[in-house]
Amino acid sequence: MSNNKGLYGDIKLFTGTGSPDLAQKISEYLKVPLSPRDIIEFPNENLLVRLHGSVRGQDVYVIQSTSVPVHRNWMELFIMLQTLRLDSAARITAVIPFMSYARSDKKDQPRVPIVARLVADMVQIAGADRYITLDLHAGQIQGFFSIPGDVLTTFHMLADHAKKLCKKLKDPVVVSADLGFAKRARNFAERIDTPLALIEKRRVANDSKAEAMGIVGDVENRDVLLVDDEVNTAGSVVEGVELLKRKGARDVFLVFVHAVLSDPAAERLSKLPLAGIITTDTVPIPEEKRKLLGDKLTVLSTASLLGEVIRRAHEGRSVGAMFNE
Amino acid sequence: MSNNKGLYGDIKLFTGTGSPDLAQKISEYLKVPLSPRDIIEFPNENLLVRLHGSVRGQDVYVIQSTSVPVHRNWMELFIMLQTLRLDSAARITAVIPFMSYARSDKKDQPRVPIVARLVADMVQIAGADRYITLDLHAGQIQGFFSIPGDVLTTFHMLADHAKKLCKKLKDPVVVSADLGFAKRARNFAERIDTPLALIEKRRVANDSKAEAMGIVGDVENRDVLLVDDEVNTAGSVVEGVELLKRKGARDVFLVFVHAVLSDPAAERLSKLPLAGIITTDTVPIPEEKRKLLGDKLTVLSTASLLGEVIRRAHEGRSVGAMFNE
Amino acid sequence: MSNNKGLYGDIKLFTGTGSPDLAQKISEYLKVPLSPRDIIEFPNENLLVRLHGSVRGQDVYVIQSTSVPVHRNWMELFIMLQTLRLDSAARITAVIPFMSYARSDKKDQPRVPIVARLVADMVQIAGADRYITLDLHAGQIQGFFSIPGDVLTTFHMLADHAKKLCKKLKDPVVVSADLGFAKRARNFAERIDTPLALIEKRRVANDSKAEAMGIVGDVENRDVLLVDDEVNTAGSVVEGVELLKRKGARDVFLVFVHAVLSDPAAERLSKLPLAGIITTDTVPIPEEKRKLLGDKLTVLSTASLLGEVIRRAHEGRSVGAMFNE
Amino acid sequence: MSNNKGLYGDIKLFTGTGSPDLAQKISEYLKVPLSPRDIIEFPNENLLVRLHGSVRGQDVYVIQSTSVPVHRNWMELFIMLQTLRLDSAARITAVIPFMSYARSDKKDQPRVPIVARLVADMVQIAGADRYITLDLHAGQIQGFFSIPGDVLTTFHMLADHAKKLCKKLKDPVVVSADLGFAKRARNFAERIDTPLALIEKRRVANDSKAEAMGIVGDVENRDVLLVDDEVNTAGSVVEGVELLKRKGARDVFLVFVHAVLSDPAAERLSKLPLAGIITTDTVPIPEEKRKLLGDKLTVLSTASLLGEVIRRAHEGRSVGAMFNE
Amino acid sequence: MSNNKGLYGDIKLFTGTGSPDLAQKISEYLKVPLSPRDIIEFPNENLLVRLHGSVRGQDVYVIQSTSVPVHRNWMELFIMLQTLRLDSAARITAVIPFMSYARSDKKDQPRVPIVARLVADMVQIAGADRYITLDLHAGQIQGFFSIPGDVLTTFHMLADHAKKLCKKLKDPVVVSADLGFAKRARNFAERIDTPLALIEKRRVANDSKAEAMGIVGDVENRDVLLVDDEVNTAGSVVEGVELLKRKGARDVFLVFVHAVLSDPAAERLSKLPLAGIITTDTVPIPEEKRKLLGDKLTVLSTASLLGEVIRRAHEGRSVGAMFNE
Amino acid sequence: MSNNKGLYGDIKLFTGTGSPDLAQKISEYLKVPLSPRDIIEFPNENLLVRLHGSVRGQDVYVIQSTSVPVHRNWMELFIMLQTLRLDSAARITAVIPFMSYARSDKKDQPRVPIVARLVADMVQIAGADRYITLDLHAGQIQGFFSIPGDVLTTFHMLADHAKKLCKKLKDPVVVSADLGFAKRARNFAERIDTPLALIEKRRVANDSKAEAMGIVGDVENRDVLLVDDEVNTAGSVVEGVELLKRKGARDVFLVFVHAVLSDPAAERLSKLPLAGIITTDTVPIPEEKRKLLGDKLTVLSTASLLGEVIRRAHEGRSVGAMFNE
Repeated sequence: MSNNKGLYGDIKLFTGTGSPDLAQKISEYLKVPLSPRDIIEFPNENLLVRLHGSVRGQDVYVIQSTSVPVHRNWMELFIMLQTLRLDSAARITAVIPFMSYARSDKKDQPRVPIVARLVADMVQIAGADRYITLDLHAGQIQGFFSIPGDVLTTFHMLADHAKKLCKKLKDPVVVSADLGFAKRARNFAERIDTPLALIEKRRVANDSKAEAMGIVGDVENRDVLLVDDEVNTAGSVVEGVELLKRKGARDVFLVFVHAVLSDPAAERLSKLPLAGIITTDTVPIPEEKRKLLGDKLTVLSTASLLGEVIRRAHEGRSVGAMFNE
Repeated sequence: MSNNKGLYGDIKLFTGTGSPDLAQKISEYLKVPLSPRDIIEFPNENLLVRLHGSVRGQDVYVIQSTSVPVHRNWMELFIMLQTLRLDSAARITAVIPFMSYARSDKKDQPRVPIVARLVADMVQIAGADRYITLDLHAGQIQGFFSIPGDVLTTFHMLADHAKKLCKKLKDPVVVSADLGFAKRARNFAERIDTPLALIEKRRVANDSKAEAMGIVGDVENRDVLLVDDEVNTAGSVVEGVELLKRKGARDVFLVFVHAVLSDPAAERLSKLPLAGIITTDTVPIPEEKRKLLGDKLTVLSTASLLGEVIRRAHEGRSVGAMFNE
Repeated sequence: MSNNKGLYGDIKLFTGTGSPDLAQKISEYLKVPLSPRDIIEFPNENLLVRLHGSVRGQDVYVIQSTSVPVHRNWMELFIMLQTLRLDSAARITAVIPFMSYARSDKKDQPRVPIVARLVADMVQIAGADRYITLDLHAGQIQGFFSIPGDVLTTFHMLADHAKKLCKKLKDPVVVSADLGFAKRARNFAERIDTPLALIEKRRVANDSKAEAMGIVGDVENRDVLLVDDEVNTAGSVVEGVELLKRKGARDVFLVFVHAVLSDPAAERLSKLPLAGIITTDTVPIPEEKRKLLGDKLTVLSTASLLGEVIRRAHEGRSVGAMFNE
Repeated sequence: MSNNKGLYGDIKLFTGTGSPDLAQKISEYLKVPLSPRDIIEFPNENLLVRLHGSVRGQDVYVIQSTSVPVHRNWMELFIMLQTLRLDSAARITAVIPFMSYARSDKKDQPRVPIVARLVADMVQIAGADRYITLDLHAGQIQGFFSIPGDVLTTFHMLADHAKKLCKKLKDPVVVSADLGFAKRARNFAERIDTPLALIEKRRVANDSKAEAMGIVGDVENRDVLLVDDEVNTAGSVVEGVELLKRKGARDVFLVFVHAVLSDPAAERLSKLPLAGIITTDTVPIPEEKRKLLGDKLTVLSTASLLGEVIRRAHEGRSVGAMFNE
Repeated sequence: MSNNKGLYGDIKLFTGTGSPDLAQKISEYLKVPLSPRDIIEFPNENLLVRLHGSVRGQDVYVIQSTSVPVHRNWMELFIMLQTLRLDSAARITAVIPFMSYARSDKKDQPRVPIVARLVADMVQIAGADRYITLDLHAGQIQGFFSIPGDVLTTFHMLADHAKKLCKKLKDPVVVSADLGFAKRARNFAERIDTPLALIEKRRVANDSKAEAMGIVGDVENRDVLLVDDEVNTAGSVVEGVELLKRKGARDVFLVFVHAVLSDPAAERLSKLPLAGIITTDTVPIPEEKRKLLGDKLTVLSTASLLGEVIRRAHEGRSVGAMFNE
Repeated sequence: MSNNKGLYGDIKLFTGTGSPDLAQKISEYLKVPLSPRDIIEFPNENLLVRLHGSVRGQDVYVIQSTSVPVHRNWMELFIMLQTLRLDSAARITAVIPFMSYARSDKKDQPRVPIVARLVADMVQIAGADRYITLDLHAGQIQGFFSIPGDVLTTFHMLADHAKKLCKKLKDPVVVSADLGFAKRARNFAERIDTPLALIEKRRVANDSKAEAMGIVGDVENRDVLLVDDEVNTAGSVVEGVELLKRKGARDVFLVFVHAVLSDPAAERLSKLPLAGIITTDTVPIPEEKRKLLGDKLTVLSTASLLGEVIRRAHEGRSVGAMFNE
């Protein structure tokens, strides 16, 4: 990648402590090294960010996923953004492979916050001129940002993988794990040319806590691709897989973007009769969880996708063109 | 309603020209007259807004639906808001029973706008301190506003109506007209205690324009409540009803919130074998369209809902409490 | 025009639907093609704007006059600006040859808006970094914008034309059609070296609606250049010309910048004993109006003026220098 | 005036050092004392503002004219506004009887500022929620403020005075001292029922500095009311009066709002053959200048006008109603 | 405390999880209960804040200290503020007894952030209209906030305590633990009428890490009050006390405001030859640390100070008056 | 210095009237001429700023010290910034060698302003994108600006001078003239390798105005460098020097950054038994004051420091690197 001064100066890549491996891979894709910086946590938990070199007049990208430790990762990102802004960077882009709190995106009950809007505002206030992120929980979250950005999708990456997989499957069907994911599940099914079914949860009458699960559509004697945007504790996944099996489904593959995998997700998934688990590296998956999931686990890397978009953003070329066929 | 000076001064109701009947009904519910104002359109189409009396130090509500003429209605609202602000109103609330452009809520393709965010910003810039609206296309649009607001729902009103109706129906099923409405359709089905089915549209292979429609779930020999948030030209409704009939559905009732009814919707609906059409008055339905739809049409008024929320907002009482059971 | 990346990237020209012919002429002057984009009006009147290519890192100019349909034209402009901003254009300039609502520029009675300030704010909120416009109703409107801009004038263009014309006239006098235009009429008279007279309207005592017209200054036996910034319904023009004739004026030429020509202006003007009508193309004049006005009508094009300023703005050269003699 | 807590808390009046006498008279009109505060100028010219008592939760009005010392008066006002805001006043209104720099209201040549917009922004940034001012140089300056305000006029006060005067005059005519004041001069003439004439200045050909003066309209054998919004060095007044006399005018009265009277205005006016000088107290007129002008000078006080508007603003009553007949 | 609607509606107290005991004491002082709310941490560490009742039109105070867990506490505060704002509270005050990151208040080396400014901005963006805090590391941090606030001091509380203590001491001297605290140490000494000495640290030549400590002023044979604003790991305190002892000091008392006490502070202090440790409850001190410090530890509560200021802020009365003698 | 178009266009230097000599020297250092502009003061004290050439797309630096006349200098700076912004400069940097009002940086008593924050905001509102300044009274004032900037220090320049001086002195000691300067005095002493002492002022009991002065640390038989950030009227300096002499100090040198020297500072200093006065040219020192101080006075120029930083800022190179050893 050319390092000549372009429209926004030289390119500089920084990473926080939230997703160092992914940042390293992006750096390798771009052939641009990660710029050295200190991130020191003092005994009182306060962070000190210190850049080793000046970013004056440069085009800076800060890579930070915001999974656990969630609040530290967000604050670390905000502090890095401010540091870069105060050092007079020409343009600053926050690269957030996984945006936590994205599920807090509307007031679906009275007197709750919309945290996704709050963090979107803070990314800007702290100093970002642009943002890049991947598969937001709801596409509308783009509208929470007052700055421009690129919201990318792993849809093509996962669908291409699934398409190859389907060649070996018998009567595959895409099953949406959640009704809120129905439209994207349909797109997925359309792309890999399978039918669609949906898992429907609803509250059991006279008991506000208990929920019953049903399946809308046909799964009997079919191999299933159970799709969702993120897996958290995997509680619903367990119920969903059991239900699918009861309804006569054959092999079940789990396909999702963000491997949040809060405890005890990895343990639960390791015990489920799953034929495969396909996800990405937007959230770092610790070694012990990878071990638990063993061979079933396939992690597709988003590094070249993110790297390519950073490159195009830096050079002022179209990102949309990447997704045209 | 007491007119004593409260926390935000006296209450004042204004209406634009976008939904005068609904505004009149809200006024009657509240027993607060609509404040006189001129809205004059000059031959050059420029509008002159002029308040007959001062709103200095008062708590003002401007009611304006933003259906056709869409752009005039939005601009008229913005101009009214500015007029009230420049006249030093103490607090200004934009009451938007139907928010057009709400479907432009994300960039689902490259290089398109997010108009819903734009109008949300403009409502604020023009002068609103708060907003009140009904059944946004996506709940996330709340997060587009930087000002607080009340996003109400006709869900309970429509569900109560549907529940009574179902007593007369045979094996009723709720069918979501669109996968993006799946979650709200589920809630509707849950509330009136019926199963759920979904209409799924997908592009036909090798032809980017042609779409095929299918049904996920079971509708045979069932009475159907076909639900959606708005009906525009009714093209999809026509296809959906025909498909339902082909799949063996019995009576089909159409239930939706916003009666946009762009031409030739009314004509199309009048020719469809529908057992009933249930909607609300968030969008004014012209007399000629009402006639076309005849007895099948039931329009539930949102006036008391909006009126009650205005009252509570003015008095500083909880709105959330209205929706608790 | 060089298309090399300059300070703000490549140049891109877009046009809305408000003044396509003028935009085309500007494009020809600059030898920069109009960038392709869709502007689709759906049956519910909502607009979809979609750029065919990326504007990332480019220097974009959007040309949109805001005459009828006034509100659609303004909203279309705002939506285009947001689309460009969200697509990460490096710099966006709104080029507004005619800014409607400019006469709503002060509160000359209580409880009215200042719409010109409102639209100035919205141009910025929607995404413009700069603006270019022509002959604002009041120069002070520049101060309504919080962004920098170039407010150009057709003064030299019209005056040069008038100067040539005067060589054929007998004792020409410039008459200001309105007292609010007195200063600019004086400049015009000074430039073409004629005396000045003014039409004075005042309310007739005891009748707030009736107005009487008088002339301050001398027009008898003189050829008259009746000057104003815009002609709307031409009601005042009719009265003015009749008065001038009664006062003994010889040939009367009408000179104005913005040909708003709301009905029945064209019809009225066609019937008036005018020796000539000189105006510009900041507002598109429909073919049927042009026909009505026939040979009397001279339309001077602002395309090269606007084009030259766009060129200089893009290249970072002085605009002021264009107007120095 | 009741001091009970109203919508915005108790009323508090403060004055800067720019117009202490006018502030004192407003205080007397309102029967609300001026709140004690220190304004100390240190030897390094830095000001210290210190309020003697808390303004927490109160409705505060700061009276400050911004004539000489112009920059100190503006900065003092800004500093007072910030002091009040940091002390948590509930609402702060800047009362600016004379707003200097109002003539810097547009870019009438390239590369100059619009200082009136700058100070309007600063009044807000410093802490004002509203503003009150009198007879702005151009009505459009209202649109420079992003906060609401009351722009009052001494028009009625001066016209009533002039009307009485005219009963003693012979064939009075109103003469506008400047073409930019033509419209307001017409209103004045209309109100007191006299004809209108205008002084026209224009540059002499081939000499950018020399200006020639002419009169449009008829003044011979008439008593003249020469009107303008402010008198600065009185250079134009001298020329205008001489011209009027040469043209056969009888008695000349000078009527204007803002008595800026920069040196050598008072001396010049004292030597002119003026029958009377009628102005207001928006700008303090030093004792020595009053002496020079002697009996000819009539200063109408704006204290009751400003006081009444403050009272109405505080109580949330209409200001516009004050000016209805 | 009266709960009648005042200028800003009823009072409501909320607390985060950062300083629940102090919040409880403030609630008791004010006789206003803490409003119920849920703060739920999901397995993915995302927080859900949910208010049990409406705050519409009320005057709300949120109490949250921001010691460990630092980032969660800040984010929790921001989320609470947004929740209250979106629920249309009339006025929101963030009460931050201890503001962490206050030491990141300037760029004392290149390429570091100013985190205190960042969090000040975020408090406002999230929704606070005002703030209340105690003994900021530098008084200038008040200027980081764009909203008004009350910055209180425990100075009088600690000085009164120290004054009583001094009656039992021999030749007491106040020693500033840090040169940056010199001015406040002087004020303390002045108030309790003792001399002043200062500990001076400086880098040892040719070694950028090693520091040597000296004492400026006289401590021999004197009882010492060693004062500072916060104690973190107590490393400097250990060195300081040892130095004081070497220099012949008699009893040493440690006096400081914010008991951050990061590990191993409590252990270190417990082993030092200290005659007493006097601090406040702005930071919660865990039971095990209290035990380690035993009888030496005196914790003065700031509850009545904070409570009284909240009361006055709510009632619109002067806070400054509390600190006048 | 290369004048090629860089990241921010060509460089342009402007100066206000506040520090013309320093601006001239910076211009010479950079080999970039000061751009011609008019700054005209009208008889009514209003300023007209007019640039002779366009700054469109250029990287502009405005040099303005803000010593006396303080308010005119600030307003002149604000007006210049707006002029440059409205002329579409690409980037504007306010270079403020001495920032007056910096001592108004916190509310150290109730109901006073924080003027330093106010002017920081105004620099931005007027149009600056960045700022450069020198030795702020408190480092925290950096956090008052919402824009990035470079806060430079004359520390190295003064320390290098002092180091050479010390070679000729006997047992030199650095004495901090004020406890608020203690930390910087320590750094100074550390750098030139001398001990530290401090002057302590405190109020005399029972008399709020009288202050007594003492010295903490040892000065007897030592040569003294009395250091501070600025000298205003020199009242404290007089007392300090007298005290030092009484305490047995030998030669006393006065070292400070900003030579405010309000009357009667120069006279006072001229009469004091000082061995030398070392300061800088951030504030212009009038010829008559220089004469009074005679040979004792050494003025170190900050022109090359400011010039070098401007150069690096323009070229996008590190400023921090200048201060690394």
